[in-house]
Amino acid sequence: MKLYDGGRAPNPRRVTVFLAEKGIDVEKVPVDMGQLGHKSDEVTRLNPLQRLPVLVLDDATVITESVAICRYFEELHPEPPLMGTDARDRAIVEMWNRRMELNFLAAVAAAFRHTHPAMKEWEVPQVAEWGEINRPKALAFLELLDAELAEREFIAGARYTIADITGMIAFDFMKPARIERPDHLTNVMRWYQTVSSRPSAAL
Amino acid sequence: MKLYDGGRAPNPRRVTVFLAEKGIDVEKVPVDMGQLGHKSDEVTRLNPLQRLPVLVLDDATVITESVAICRYFEELHPEPPLMGTDARDRAIVEMWNRRMELNFLAAVAAAFRHTHPAMKEWEVPQVAEWGEINRPKALAFLELLDAELAEREFIAGARYTIADITGMIAFDFMKPARIERPDHLTNVMRWYQTVSSRPSAAL
Repeated sequence: MKLYDGGRAPNPRRVTVFLAEKGIDVEKVPVDMGQLGHKSDEVTRLNPLQRLPVLVLDDATVITESVAICRYFEELHPEPPLMGTDARDRAIVEMWNRRMELNFLAAVAAAFRHTHPAMKEWEVPQVAEWGEINRPKALAFLELLDAELAEREFIAGARYTIADITGMIAFDFMKPARIERPDHLTNVMRWYQTVSSRPSAAL
Repeated sequence: MKLYDGGRAPNPRRVTVFLAEKGIDVEKVPVDMGQLGHKSDEVTRLNPLQRLPVLVLDDATVITESVAICRYFEELHPEPPLMGTDARDRAIVEMWNRRMELNFLAAVAAAFRHTHPAMKEWEVPQVAEWGEINRPKALAFLELLDAELAEREFIAGARYTIADITGMIAFDFMKPARIERPDHLTNVMRWYQTVSSRPSAAL
């Protein structure tokens, strides 16, 4: 199989960190998103939505969407579990991964894509007002998360999961999105310290 | 267990249709979203994000996020499979369900929430421009879907899955979002005809 990879952009990075945590090596096809490589004919043929990452299996099946790719690897290589260990736990991890995506990563990405000058050709049209109101949305979610993290080490419980990967990557993405780090949210900052000091975080 | 239900709103309806397709009966606590019941103290205590549906297990575990709730039931009651049958198929279903959510349902919902007068108190502030540009986004995705559906009966393959549920509900939601039905997309219309004539679609 082959993984068409977009480097440090948030979604490709989610899969990269996930694979590192699993200790899985996959042949990568690097795509330069800065040069709009994700809009090339080759990538468009695989994913008409022109987004990365894209996993191509040996039978030519194409899997897109970061979490779908992660789920595929989770099933092939269950250890260490990053998406839950039984029905109840898997539902809790899915809940938290979605909360991190829909309320945090999506808000940070909207702020970045709709206000950053470098995104002018990517996000057409940019709607500056939409980008602006997503900054406080992201921070409001982190306040809520702070209360949750008072009671446990990781986002979805006592164990590091895919929800921590999504959260860490969204947190790092606040910088280019020009959202200030919430230093007063001590539980969030303690959690970020923990997850971002894992070797996989350097990827 | 108990399911706090929000009636015909898109996300509660996703779980309702899913359960009907599975033939599962769950005790429901109806919440009147028109009266902002999802912002009540009771719901807020269960889900600080103030969204429905919310599933409360007998051990008091709270599961939110429609797809996480569906996944819990899929694991408890695997038949009929609505989220895939093996690692590859589950990844394909997840990919398509996410594509339907992120590119279609999210666009329709943005158009509705940011342009409909009835949403003024729900979506603060409404960003009309953001709502407007999501209408063509939803339709552009349906064009792409039309090409896919030329080759198969259902969204994720030969079998009805959760991706069809998400798609059907987003399609129905185009009406209040004031997005015209794309009658020229014959494969999409044939698919919609098929999925919306199932008994579960009446719920």
